[in-house]
Amino acid sequence: MFITLTTDFGTQDAFVGAMKGVILSLAPLARIVDISHDVPAQDVVAGALILEAACRYFPKGTIHLAVVDPGVGSRRAAIGIQTDNFCFVGPDNGLFDLALRVEERRDPDAVLIERRAIQLTQSSFHRRAASPTFHGRDIFAPVAAWLANGNILSQMGEPLTTRIKLNLPEPVSIPDGLELRGLRADRFGNVVTNLTRFDFQRWNDAGRGIEIRIGEIKIRSLSRTYSDVPSGEWVAYFNSADRLEMGIHGGRAANALRDNDRIELTFSACESI
Amino acid sequence: MFITLTTDFGTQDAFVGAMKGVILSLAPLARIVDISHDVPAQDVVAGALILEAACRYFPKGTIHLAVVDPGVGSRRAAIGIQTDNFCFVGPDNGLFDLALRVEERRDPDAVLIERRAIQLTQSSFHRRAASPTFHGRDIFAPVAAWLANGNILSQMGEPLTTRIKLNLPEPVSIPDGLELRGLRADRFGNVVTNLTRFDFQRWNDAGRGIEIRIGEIKIRSLSRTYSDVPSGEWVAYFNSADRLEMGIHGGRAANALRDNDRIELTFSACESI
Amino acid sequence: MFITLTTDFGTQDAFVGAMKGVILSLAPLARIVDISHDVPAQDVVAGALILEAACRYFPKGTIHLAVVDPGVGSRRAAIGIQTDNFCFVGPDNGLFDLALRVEERRDPDAVLIERRAIQLTQSSFHRRAASPTFHGRDIFAPVAAWLANGNILSQMGEPLTTRIKLNLPEPVSIPDGLELRGLRADRFGNVVTNLTRFDFQRWNDAGRGIEIRIGEIKIRSLSRTYSDVPSGEWVAYFNSADRLEMGIHGGRAANALRDNDRIELTFSACESI
Repeated sequence: MFITLTTDFGTQDAFVGAMKGVILSLAPLARIVDISHDVPAQDVVAGALILEAACRYFPKGTIHLAVVDPGVGSRRAAIGIQTDNFCFVGPDNGLFDLALRVEERRDPDAVLIERRAIQLTQSSFHRRAASPTFHGRDIFAPVAAWLANGNILSQMGEPLTTRIKLNLPEPVSIPDGLELRGLRADRFGNVVTNLTRFDFQRWNDAGRGIEIRIGEIKIRSLSRTYSDVPSGEWVAYFNSADRLEMGIHGGRAANALRDNDRIELTFSACESI
Repeated sequence: MFITLTTDFGTQDAFVGAMKGVILSLAPLARIVDISHDVPAQDVVAGALILEAACRYFPKGTIHLAVVDPGVGSRRAAIGIQTDNFCFVGPDNGLFDLALRVEERRDPDAVLIERRAIQLTQSSFHRRAASPTFHGRDIFAPVAAWLANGNILSQMGEPLTTRIKLNLPEPVSIPDGLELRGLRADRFGNVVTNLTRFDFQRWNDAGRGIEIRIGEIKIRSLSRTYSDVPSGEWVAYFNSADRLEMGIHGGRAANALRDNDRIELTFSACESI
Repeated sequence: MFITLTTDFGTQDAFVGAMKGVILSLAPLARIVDISHDVPAQDVVAGALILEAACRYFPKGTIHLAVVDPGVGSRRAAIGIQTDNFCFVGPDNGLFDLALRVEERRDPDAVLIERRAIQLTQSSFHRRAASPTFHGRDIFAPVAAWLANGNILSQMGEPLTTRIKLNLPEPVSIPDGLELRGLRADRFGNVVTNLTRFDFQRWNDAGRGIEIRIGEIKIRSLSRTYSDVPSGEWVAYFNSADRLEMGIHGGRAANALRDNDRIELTFSACESI
């Protein structure tokens, strides 16, 4: 059984090691897979984007444990969410929302996911005397381990009726197009936006051509990849996680395009080729 | 059998990969768990603090291999230390001292740990022609692998009577209190001190209230967690590894409180609540 | 079966997690070992040096998957290379050249490696609808997983007759010596050069003494390790991967010696001791 870890704990402290120790003490056969521990500190949106892009590729049954948790020690709930494919375990702050949307799209007829969210109140599945500052080690790690050992999420607490939603700007309709936002730059300086391919296709069911404006910069069509344009030029494409992304071939778009910058996408009258 | 790795090798070079290759070539069934490879370069105290906070959570029998080793290539000994729960393998420079104290507190009646420290002189358990610059790969990794394969530490060298002690400032008694030091900031900017909860309770067996002074800053009581104080305020609490830690709710204490800064903790006349 | 990963994807994005998910979905028993994900972005030479220093220590049969791939999305080939010990999988840009030379030296009589390089054209071993920007996830990861499951590289494409060579400066013969280059600093600030111990011994079969000049700096002999010289002094030695390296005992040579700087090594008339 696989347990993935996604946190903002970094790798220079003992946080990740302590969580792994707790998991392996309770579930020695569990196989831990690091997705990332370098989510920017307390950046729930960045964590949600990483989970969106990585979780879907793991085998059915995988337990995705994630901790980006500015509210640790406050009253925010600890939750587990069961979907057809995965079990997500972590804080109730919207961290899993984008990965859950991916699950919903894969299986639109599935029972409403909300019904299967559980608030992790059953302390017999936690470490004794849980630290108020480290739920990753004392609540989420043991819960994930007990799940890996074959225990059932619904035994671990009460159904949660209302989850906290991720605070993510949605695309806004403007005349002939959409106003988008840059959300986050990746390691290569490419900037991912708040428009998924799925949403794009709903807005653009006629298959029209598009133009993108970022301040003075204009991109006149979508490309498949960086090398579709000459070196040094801007390029827009749907990235490998199916989000619209901006890049500069051989450069760093993030130097010109900051998080939360306004991006205008307009549909042209004619169809794209 | 688990082998944990804690080093200052970073992750941008081949050091860690080479160690893992050596371990898995000798002990293919061993399961390697990374604690951290981002200990600040050659910072033995930081490595000791990470081991203190992480090792205890692993299953009994785990082999903890650690390399923070400013003295590699000099005459410092290579050592293994057997405790009731773990085997520690690495350089003789105090790196394991804090984790060993945790072990002693868990089982105060245990045979003196010092008796079971071994200098790793038996070269048949090393790689042939060990490099003078990379004992991690050529001595510690194969020793850990042979231990994981069921070999016994005492076969691997001679008993070591005197180990090098960790160079860590201890709390100093002052009128009505203790003078402490900040040791290291974690990823979130919280500063851990040289006072453990265990030592605090010995000094404060009457359960008196406390006050903390760092230059102009005053903290008037211990909290359980950051969110016990308003945003922007200083907070002192015992962290998840049971060390006194200073933070700023929603901020970075490390911006104001440097490593090795002087911290004054005074006991009040009255009992704490 | 072990699959090692070496990439320039960093650990703050979802790239590595997605690759691991794909591998484990196809080959759940495969054991993934991270060598490094912090190869400097798009630095093929740095990636080649890391593979050179790490791959050789893994058990025979290990699959070494590596992605440092400035040309993703262009026409560069995706390749697999079978040697006596390993299978290498990644882009055709010279990334594996140094590790392959290590393999050749271990077994000079082996069938020419070039004959066993395969262009990974057989798309039934790839993910459906491979993304043009993420061959790591969509081509290399599934190929590695199918190899770990016992499939044979030659089924996965066509023999590749000419591979792209690594763009690495070779040592240049000068009167009484060699002109070398600094290639890359490691985490500790030591600078590795383009001279291997193997090549050094071919050039210096008489076993003469040497002197090294870097601008104004002179190093008058080879050492075994840093601590052979006083603190603060320059030292030259063959590092743990058998490359000539320059360091400063207790300091950072990389502050004075940049990548690609010219280094003059001269042989003296007399023999070394």
